[in-house]
Amino acid sequence: MNRSGTEWIRVFAPATVANVGCGFDVLGFAIDGPGDEVLATLDERPGVVIDSIDGAEDRLPLAPEKNTGGRGVQSLLKALGREETGIRLRIHKKMPLGSGLGSSAASAVASVVAANELLGAPLKREELLPHVVEGEVAASGTAHADNVAASLLGGFVLVRSDNPPDVISLDYPKDLCCTIIHPKIEIETRNTRMILRKEVSMANAIQQWANVGALVAGLYKGDYDLIGRSLQDRIVEPIRSVLIPGYDRMKNRAMEAGAIGFSISGAGPSVFALCRSLEQAQEIGESAGSVLEEMDLEYDLHLSPVNHKGSYILERGES
Amino acid sequence: MNRSGTEWIRVFAPATVANVGCGFDVLGFAIDGPGDEVLATLDERPGVVIDSIDGAEDRLPLAPEKNTGGRGVQSLLKALGREETGIRLRIHKKMPLGSGLGSSAASAVASVVAANELLGAPLKREELLPHVVEGEVAASGTAHADNVAASLLGGFVLVRSDNPPDVISLDYPKDLCCTIIHPKIEIETRNTRMILRKEVSMANAIQQWANVGALVAGLYKGDYDLIGRSLQDRIVEPIRSVLIPGYDRMKNRAMEAGAIGFSISGAGPSVFALCRSLEQAQEIGESAGSVLEEMDLEYDLHLSPVNHKGSYILERGES
Repeated sequence: MNRSGTEWIRVFAPATVANVGCGFDVLGFAIDGPGDEVLATLDERPGVVIDSIDGAEDRLPLAPEKNTGGRGVQSLLKALGREETGIRLRIHKKMPLGSGLGSSAASAVASVVAANELLGAPLKREELLPHVVEGEVAASGTAHADNVAASLLGGFVLVRSDNPPDVISLDYPKDLCCTIIHPKIEIETRNTRMILRKEVSMANAIQQWANVGALVAGLYKGDYDLIGRSLQDRIVEPIRSVLIPGYDRMKNRAMEAGAIGFSISGAGPSVFALCRSLEQAQEIGESAGSVLEEMDLEYDLHLSPVNHKGSYILERGES
Repeated sequence: MNRSGTEWIRVFAPATVANVGCGFDVLGFAIDGPGDEVLATLDERPGVVIDSIDGAEDRLPLAPEKNTGGRGVQSLLKALGREETGIRLRIHKKMPLGSGLGSSAASAVASVVAANELLGAPLKREELLPHVVEGEVAASGTAHADNVAASLLGGFVLVRSDNPPDVISLDYPKDLCCTIIHPKIEIETRNTRMILRKEVSMANAIQQWANVGALVAGLYKGDYDLIGRSLQDRIVEPIRSVLIPGYDRMKNRAMEAGAIGFSISGAGPSVFALCRSLEQAQEIGESAGSVLEEMDLEYDLHLSPVNHKGSYILERGES
């Protein structure tokens, strides 16, 4: 039944920053932490069972088809013709829901990577993409690959197409770091998408694709000034930033403190600054965070290099 | 008066493909030929004079401020505080007007490069950008840098901003070639711009910036398949291609013959295919051109590698 001999496995999948300024719905990168952990175990009874989810205050469904991890694993088993296999998942949410850090994506990725290992690793990392994208459907209702692709593959990714996934791993400067500030308020992704317009002006669209192209070039060149100039988003940031308390002031302080660029992580409320080093990330995070302190708002600060390995195995065993 | 000792100079500036599929208004590349030549001569009388324009059937203005070359040189002289300098231009149009190959841009570039040399080359190549962009205003009424930047600098360029110009020279595979098919009909750039919509759907805009980012990544990676997948343009091509006879059939034949991708050059009517070699460019050009032959339409075929040196000096002298 299990060619690899592995009976149980524990997998980590990192949080991710999607959109990345101008790259709405198409760019994303992974960070070292936080992230979700999944313990997956082979079971004699066929099908996917979610035994438990901790760290989510009972707010996530245990029904596998409604859970990003469960749905992703079901998709994998079906594609491999292995629906007779039984897999039980214990999901450990180690980052808050609705934070804009790809929480649902991390659970999908850790679950699918774990299940693939339990099956003897029949698929390569890139080949898992359709299944983690299918998992994400459970959370957002549509297939968006930006968070899952970054969490799965690590690094900086560009999603040229969600379905079928066409994901490009981009080169980027190896010392590129980020600060993430997560104000402890919650925004529903569905709502943040609804407030966006269905049409955009041609002029803004042209500026946006100029910036996306320039950002990709800046990442390849390792040109921090170009990355910074290109990060600006004329289309989504002006609308969504209104929902984030103190956004403009945080951005100003981060830029004054030397950030390469600053924007919203995913749909928010988390915000991020790209930085040249972890030391600088610390300073920039504290400068921007001081705005929230002045408003008596709590926040978490996450400092990380751009993570280059994506999801990884923590532990595995035969009993 | 002339520190360089040069009294006259002859400069070539190449034709260019702008837009390049998904990169409407932001991408461009230069080809080896055709292109325009300008003979510039120092004169004792201050100001810019256009002595002659040949190859344009008297359809281009000799008034310097209305001519892309004249206006570009005026801008250069003004910026350098050298308005007392006299420069006479003889412009040799060596490509048809309104072909979609950046004819007005090539004249602006050759004129400004020539004038800068006559002045002793006070500005570096990149520093001439604002002046060639200002020259282009004479032709299109607005400052668009895509053609002029590619003609000036060579290679593949991305224009992040027209004013002030922020132009990025992209890496690209050194054997990348193109076929250009120029049907001998004429389209006015102003009209081709007018038929475009002022708003675009968010979904199409997202697909377009995904493609622009992916095209830049494909150029850096030298990944021809990715370049081909990314070249598609959902916004402009469907509208402008209607004005080009046999467009869809030309595209089909080019793709069947192995083209990496196919789209409209500038505002048309020229079309281009990216190809892996000059031999392939020949085959693809003939395949696509056969559509025009079947319609009894004349066309020119230009085969070229992506040109990497941009505008260059042909000849200079002291009398």
